[in-house]
Amino acid sequence: MSEFKIIEVKQSVLENNDRDAEMLRSELHACHTFLLNLMSSPGSGKTTTLCRTIEALKEDLRIGVMEADIDSDVDAATIENTGVKVIQLHTGGMCHLDAGMTRQGLRNLGVEDVDLAILENIGNLVCPAEFDTGAVKNAMILSVPEGHDKPLKYPLMFSICDVLLINKIDVMSVFDFDLEKCKEYVWRLNPHMKIIPICAKTGEGIQEWADWLREQTRAWIK
Amino acid sequence: MSEFKIIEVKQSVLENNDRDAEMLRSELHACHTFLLNLMSSPGSGKTTTLCRTIEALKEDLRIGVMEADIDSDVDAATIENTGVKVIQLHTGGMCHLDAGMTRQGLRNLGVEDVDLAILENIGNLVCPAEFDTGAVKNAMILSVPEGHDKPLKYPLMFSICDVLLINKIDVMSVFDFDLEKCKEYVWRLNPHMKIIPICAKTGEGIQEWADWLREQTRAWIK
Repeated sequence: MSEFKIIEVKQSVLENNDRDAEMLRSELHACHTFLLNLMSSPGSGKTTTLCRTIEALKEDLRIGVMEADIDSDVDAATIENTGVKVIQLHTGGMCHLDAGMTRQGLRNLGVEDVDLAILENIGNLVCPAEFDTGAVKNAMILSVPEGHDKPLKYPLMFSICDVLLINKIDVMSVFDFDLEKCKEYVWRLNPHMKIIPICAKTGEGIQEWADWLREQTRAWIK
Repeated sequence: MSEFKIIEVKQSVLENNDRDAEMLRSELHACHTFLLNLMSSPGSGKTTTLCRTIEALKEDLRIGVMEADIDSDVDAATIENTGVKVIQLHTGGMCHLDAGMTRQGLRNLGVEDVDLAILENIGNLVCPAEFDTGAVKNAMILSVPEGHDKPLKYPLMFSICDVLLINKIDVMSVFDFDLEKCKEYVWRLNPHMKIIPICAKTGEGIQEWADWLREQTRAWIK
């Protein structure tokens, strides 16, 4: 029997999401909680990556996860098995989360005993990029089967992220994925993007990613 | 040098998109043009599938393609090489097309000499499902690397489509994709969904899909 809460989050009535997001970041800073917003297409491996990340960090940081989904709760059930605190956010058809919805989630998660809160956003490369959730850092996953041309087609998403995990690198040769070309497209949009190739299935690259996230979290919560 | 037009489509001001979509379908019927709306996640293989489809049908039907993208024109350039009429629609950040935007596209494509018009929608499993484009049929692609659980997570998209192409079946064993489970999830939401496993890269399954599309088109334009 699953124990996690399922929260129906409602779109906020605030007109100025950017201002609300800034406010949320200040609140998070005040209560020493780092928030990571994790975005990607459907099926790029967000949940598997998250499980690996939790495994690598749970001895060092107190972690809480918010799994956003339109409807189901399969991901929250998976995360629950890692032993960290998790809640499911239902957006009721909404294609993204804004700062108000994220705040509702954080209240229900409870952050007083959380160093690192992770929001797994809706699987979508378009709308989530347009709404600042109040996260301290934005991470995205691009999986190899999606193709190296995605930065050309979803430029905003690649512009607003701080770190890009290129997942499923074990199948790179099967899919003719050109890693150098992908990096070139990304850095043209966003010269500061940190790019880490990983394979969530085998664990390759997870150490580098976990080290980065640990460092960011510690700098924020100290 | 590419010859195709790039059209900046604007969100329609009509409040009632459903009514507008019905009107567009009547107009298409009157001018003997079938419109297919093709949807999927980013990187599931819409453009490659479309190239194969055109190859299989271009001797039998006069085809016109509208490539919707937020920003780039890489897909229109690919389709142009097949020799059919193609235009690029830019949505300027919008995550979907509504009937009004589709009508703007069709006007620019010109349908008087087109039997089968195909709209390649924005790569997104959420928002495009919420807006009737006026298409006669909705098709979607789910690619094997995305996982067989996607119907659970994006139920509306799987509910409103007439046909589901399961693409990249050549890598099914690499990704532990359970085809029977996937079908079960889909048919629970949508018992009438036609499901065709394909591999756009090798051409497997394309004949069955092309036969279905030819039959639907002929029934509509006769």
